Amino acid sequence: MNPRLRLKSHIGVGDCMFAYSTVIRRHQFLINTLRGYNCCLNQLRKMTAEGSKREGFCIQEPDAESLLRRITPVMESSNHKGQAGNIAVIGGCREYTGAPYFAAISSLKIGADLSHVFCTKDAAPVIKSYSPELIVHPVLEESYNIKDTEETLIYNRVIDDVKGWILKFDCLVIGPGLGRDPFLLNCVSGIMKLARLANLPMIVDGDGLFHITNNIDLVSGYPLAVLTPNIIEYRRLVEKCLNCEVDSSIGPQQLLNLARFIGGVTIIQKGKSDFISNSEKVYMVTNSGSPRRCGGQGDILSGSVAVFSAWARQKNLVLADEDNSLPSPMVLGSIAGSLLVRKAASLAFEKKKRATLTTNIIECLGESLENICPAL
Amino acid sequence: MNPRLRLKSHIGVGDCMFAYSTVIRRHQFLINTLRGYNCCLNQLRKMTAEGSKREGFCIQEPDAESLLRRITPVMESSNHKGQAGNIAVIGGCREYTGAPYFAAISSLKIGADLSHVFCTKDAAPVIKSYSPELIVHPVLEESYNIKDTEETLIYNRVIDDVKGWILKFDCLVIGPGLGRDPFLLNCVSGIMKLARLANLPMIVDGDGLFHITNNIDLVSGYPLAVLTPNIIEYRRLVEKCLNCEVDSSIGPQQLLNLARFIGGVTIIQKGKSDFISNSEKVYMVTNSGSPRRCGGQGDILSGSVAVFSAWARQKNLVLADEDNSLPSPMVLGSIAGSLLVRKAASLAFEKKKRATLTTNIIECLGESLENICPAL
Repeated sequence: MNPRLRLKSHIGVGDCMFAYSTVIRRHQFLINTLRGYNCCLNQLRKMTAEGSKREGFCIQEPDAESLLRRITPVMESSNHKGQAGNIAVIGGCREYTGAPYFAAISSLKIGADLSHVFCTKDAAPVIKSYSPELIVHPVLEESYNIKDTEETLIYNRVIDDVKGWILKFDCLVIGPGLGRDPFLLNCVSGIMKLARLANLPMIVDGDGLFHITNNIDLVSGYPLAVLTPNIIEYRRLVEKCLNCEVDSSIGPQQLLNLARFIGGVTIIQKGKSDFISNSEKVYMVTNSGSPRRCGGQGDILSGSVAVFSAWARQKNLVLADEDNSLPSPMVLGSIAGSLLVRKAASLAFEKKKRATLTTNIIECLGESLENICPAL
Repeated sequence: MNPRLRLKSHIGVGDCMFAYSTVIRRHQFLINTLRGYNCCLNQLRKMTAEGSKREGFCIQEPDAESLLRRITPVMESSNHKGQAGNIAVIGGCREYTGAPYFAAISSLKIGADLSHVFCTKDAAPVIKSYSPELIVHPVLEESYNIKDTEETLIYNRVIDDVKGWILKFDCLVIGPGLGRDPFLLNCVSGIMKLARLANLPMIVDGDGLFHITNNIDLVSGYPLAVLTPNIIEYRRLVEKCLNCEVDSSIGPQQLLNLARFIGGVTIIQKGKSDFISNSEKVYMVTNSGSPRRCGGQGDILSGSVAVFSAWARQKNLVLADEDNSLPSPMVLGSIAGSLLVRKAASLAFEKKKRATLTTNIIECLGESLENICPAL
């Protein structure tokens, strides 16, 4: 046998075995998680119905519609541009352009006045062309486009560019379509430090979650951060922070522990139901969404949570809350965002069925919001 | 303590304090202005109802629909291309591409025959991609893209490029998405001087207003200029020209004074109601618009005023006005533009509610115009 062929064949088998075992392990993990999830949900519903407390924490299924109505601002003709929210998405690189668009346009469709995207130079013309409604800043750079000797210079320029804008924003969304380029992620660390200095809320999703999982200090102890992990991103966070496997039999307790470990950030654990915690309580949003799992729905959620969190902060409901029963603004924003995206996904699925795409869900945001909270 | 850390910490605190005080100052300014505005509007309505004159000027709430009908040309099959208006927008840079598109497409949707955009080379492909209806000229340059030694050469080329076109236009819109690059703004000064030589009307909005506020001679004494400031831009103009704060208790008088100071330009002071003056009288357009304040609505107004002003000039109504009661063509165009954009915004809001975006308002321009002034 030709030795080159033998070598190829050997590599092929190796690859296959590796691929096979990875797929099997991933499937097994998902099956276990979902099995556990269903048991867990039933158990949780029981606990909620009884209003019981266990192990020092409380699980609540809040009246999400009522909370959404409380934080959504009244529309008045005397309002001025920017008052209903100015959101910025940090994301969009050579590879990904849809995700930052989905997040940014969702925030506008819910009612923010202005929506910006800070992305790489290559991504900007494409994201701009999706919609004239977005303000797209081509300020980020990826390693392939710069020389080693230029890194410090370009890093400083990126930070200066963003610094000039950051005080205008009410919330940042970090991560949709960010990619994993090391230089770009380093710049994102700098932007996140700026945001913390400015006391600016941050919703961290997608590759932003990959980045903070490896650099947890970026959000640790920052109560204005919201993390929105899907099942895979959540597993990585748990493994890295709690140094153990995801255990769905103690799902909410583990979520609470994770939020505590990261120092009181809000986490939306996305799934069949969404579980939300900022280390004080666990809330669940269970209204039905859509069985369609087309890519991009997480981006709608991050853009939506950004707007609702900004509104909740503006309203200062917690300060005026005599019973001290209201969750923090970031949790309120998370509950409202989760509810609305589920409603919109459900409505879009009714209309489009298997052909439902993320843009269809975005088109249903307005109608869904109007159904819950009429504008006038 | 490590001195570098101390420095960082010091900068951080400074930044935070800066952010806080800026935001508070901005909010306080807006609250004061809006408070004053409501008192002022009630007072104005009273004055208008009595038809009184105070301090040598008159406030009128004209029959805007009737004026719009008088200036809108009859559509006839014998008309040729260009007769209903050829508009050019000067704006669009690396950062902003939506604004010039909104202004240019609005002028077409109202009835102009041709709509051009003169923008930077980076912005042109994006603006072209929004719509094949626009003629987009990639002739402007920003500093980052040219060497110091090339500046004169490129300035001359830009002016020559625009000079070749300028006599074809009926009105320029200066400013949507222009940005604030010094070299680019210098070229815009040259273009505005060309326009004055050609006796061409100019609607100045957005960053164009930033530029003329610092270079008031560009429009001073030019009765074919219309300025369309929002609340922030108006404040800058008043502070720079009248050397005082905005005083909403004498709002219309101050507007009149500002128009007089700038030598008879027309100013549309945008707000809950729009106030319009060219130093002779103050007019107000009060019909309800939309409570939505998404970015880009100002660009629709500038594109609309451009078309109506061009039509008003074409009709020569003022020359034929025996009672001498009609405002100037630029004021007529401003009143008609203000009315139509408010009607379209109101209609779009009825349909889309909180999800209303600028493109939805543009889509309602045609229907709103048809409701006021049927085509046939």
